[in-house]
Amino acid sequence: MISMQNDPQPTDLGDVRVANRAVVLRHVRVHAPCSRADIAARTGLNKATVSSLVGELIERRLVRETGLTENRIGRPATMLVLDGEPYAALGLQVGADELAAVAVDLGGNRLLTWRRAFAAPAATPAETVRALAALARRATARVAGEGRAVLGLTVGVPGLVDAAGCVPLSPALGWRDVPLADQLRAALRDPDFTVAVDNEANLAALAEQRHGAQAGATDLVHLTGGAGIGGGAIVDGRLLRGSRGFAGEIGHLCLDPTGPACACGRSGCLEALVGLPAVVRRLLPDTAEDGPVTDFLPELDRLKALAGQDDPTVRAGLAETGRHLGHAVAVLADLLNPEAVLVGGHLATLGPWLLPAARAELAARTLAPEAGGCRLEASTLGGTAAALGGATAALATVESGRLPAR
Amino acid sequence: MISMQNDPQPTDLGDVRVANRAVVLRHVRVHAPCSRADIAARTGLNKATVSSLVGELIERRLVRETGLTENRIGRPATMLVLDGEPYAALGLQVGADELAAVAVDLGGNRLLTWRRAFAAPAATPAETVRALAALARRATARVAGEGRAVLGLTVGVPGLVDAAGCVPLSPALGWRDVPLADQLRAALRDPDFTVAVDNEANLAALAEQRHGAQAGATDLVHLTGGAGIGGGAIVDGRLLRGSRGFAGEIGHLCLDPTGPACACGRSGCLEALVGLPAVVRRLLPDTAEDGPVTDFLPELDRLKALAGQDDPTVRAGLAETGRHLGHAVAVLADLLNPEAVLVGGHLATLGPWLLPAARAELAARTLAPEAGGCRLEASTLGGTAAALGGATAALATVESGRLPAR
Repeated sequence: MISMQNDPQPTDLGDVRVANRAVVLRHVRVHAPCSRADIAARTGLNKATVSSLVGELIERRLVRETGLTENRIGRPATMLVLDGEPYAALGLQVGADELAAVAVDLGGNRLLTWRRAFAAPAATPAETVRALAALARRATARVAGEGRAVLGLTVGVPGLVDAAGCVPLSPALGWRDVPLADQLRAALRDPDFTVAVDNEANLAALAEQRHGAQAGATDLVHLTGGAGIGGGAIVDGRLLRGSRGFAGEIGHLCLDPTGPACACGRSGCLEALVGLPAVVRRLLPDTAEDGPVTDFLPELDRLKALAGQDDPTVRAGLAETGRHLGHAVAVLADLLNPEAVLVGGHLATLGPWLLPAARAELAARTLAPEAGGCRLEASTLGGTAAALGGATAALATVESGRLPAR
Repeated sequence: MISMQNDPQPTDLGDVRVANRAVVLRHVRVHAPCSRADIAARTGLNKATVSSLVGELIERRLVRETGLTENRIGRPATMLVLDGEPYAALGLQVGADELAAVAVDLGGNRLLTWRRAFAAPAATPAETVRALAALARRATARVAGEGRAVLGLTVGVPGLVDAAGCVPLSPALGWRDVPLADQLRAALRDPDFTVAVDNEANLAALAEQRHGAQAGATDLVHLTGGAGIGGGAIVDGRLLRGSRGFAGEIGHLCLDPTGPACACGRSGCLEALVGLPAVVRRLLPDTAEDGPVTDFLPELDRLKALAGQDDPTVRAGLAETGRHLGHAVAVLADLLNPEAVLVGGHLATLGPWLLPAARAELAARTLAPEAGGCRLEASTLGGTAAALGGATAALATVESGRLPAR
């Protein structure tokens, strides 16, 4: 087996400077405290280049000098660390029954985690944009009050998201062609930070890679639980996007052509069998008597309680749901061969009853022995993984070497 | 949508030199003729580094100086090109009824293309190793006779291939735990070039990326036709491998739980419905009367002739096969969102009758509108795509900046 890289080369000197700035910033993030000479020695960049880049990073307050000096022969060196103070990045997510917001600093440390009840599937896109904008305004006001500038904001939604931040289709939200990034930018009156939209599973996968139990894994998948079942894949250390940004779409994999109708218009999709509304509808049929469910937490609690009491119907139903989940994970394991698939949302909450059946199905269906080494686990990131990933993604512009707007 | 890169950083100066050598070599491959000064200006490497690297590349005859000088103000510069003469790389492939060998020079130009009848599924692994070694010896003797040193050899096989070049499982060949790279290296008496083994679909995908109709595409999939149906995916410009090298395994995707038995022990797999032996068995049931088929070319010709004569059974059978193919391609389109899926082997030969039905199924099943932009086409690379990819892969060690063995 041969490793082959075909990365594009830098095409002009501006790109080279951006790329080198990213190398310096990443070195400081991973190895701080470190000196300019360390950076030059470890990255192969020449000392003048490193000095010039570090000067710029200090001037823009992305990096700062500490009082420390290295204990070594010769002239003591000034040590550098990331400057955690002046900036924040925001992530928002649109769930089945709530919105969430997370802010992090440049080092990825959480500054705030907020959740707010909101039934987006029952709301119009315009109502959802208004609610997101209100939440974003409160969060930016909070971090601004602490003296931080917002670097960027990324919203995670269940569904297809294109490169312009438009949502061509979200069966889980009932959306079609919603230009969410544009509308949110307008609702926030064209803020001086980037406003981006991404698939919630992609963002959750970024959060796994940086903050999850499998942080640092080069090949992993996060499967979101909730109204939609989405897949976000890290492949060889990078987010799998595909040509139009639609990769990782697993929710509408047909598992049973004779299965229940799906919001996408087909039948027997993973989402129609394993999605939170589908599970609640099937295992707690009485909940629909009062109209559509807009708050799933009490139903999830009931399912957990019934499963914990060994209710045979609920246990059998969750095992069956787990088998469907394992079937889909086997397809992921065959095609992507990840080290781990982490499941979030209700799939994590109900994990003790879903995952044993899912793991058996995964092992039985994957071609490679031992499912190709793929472990199937509940995510440890809790209910705000996509928002945390959104904040992580909002740091990406700076981490990739571009300077924040003044 | 945000682009986020988390590439590992260089960890020591040797790695930096290898990486920089790769940058210089790639610049010469893409931009030749070019001067040392051009390389320094375009890559951001300093001139002394470029001079030292180029000196080494010339000394090892990977690059040569031409008599050309650039038409510009100031001192004329010596121009550099790849040296196509001294080296060759070899690729072999194990098909349903033949072995193939392809040799290319450093620039990827074909030096030889050989095909030899051999029914590997009916042979033992040891017989296959002997046949491969004989073919490799003849090909290396041929290129050595032209004064070329062999840089490396990569063999493509249908099935799982691990990082050591061992084949844990190949349902199409009936193999389990065959240490093919080790055995072939021993059969060739430990040659002074690298001997590697990879999945045939991975190699065909590399050939598509470098030589196919979609060359340069950053997201594509090649589906092999033949005894096995394998997937090789280029994702964001790089081969998708997964954590153990087993990614792209689509042949045993279950399309119809009530379908025919598969060599893997399950039922209704893509391979059991769309693989060449399955198609011949279903549409030309009389062929099995004389025992197992070991040469599929006459049967493929019969199928083409019958389809061309509008034989209703064959046409309907091929359309049904096309629908199964389209079903599997829709799963690839949802998960990987490639620009194109290229089908090879008998799927290309029978393309005129398979692909219309397959495209309709792809469009109907993919969640994203217009199949997420994914086109489904017959590969233009012919029957030796994997061998060409093997030769391409065998260049990778040098292209990644490591010097050939002396």
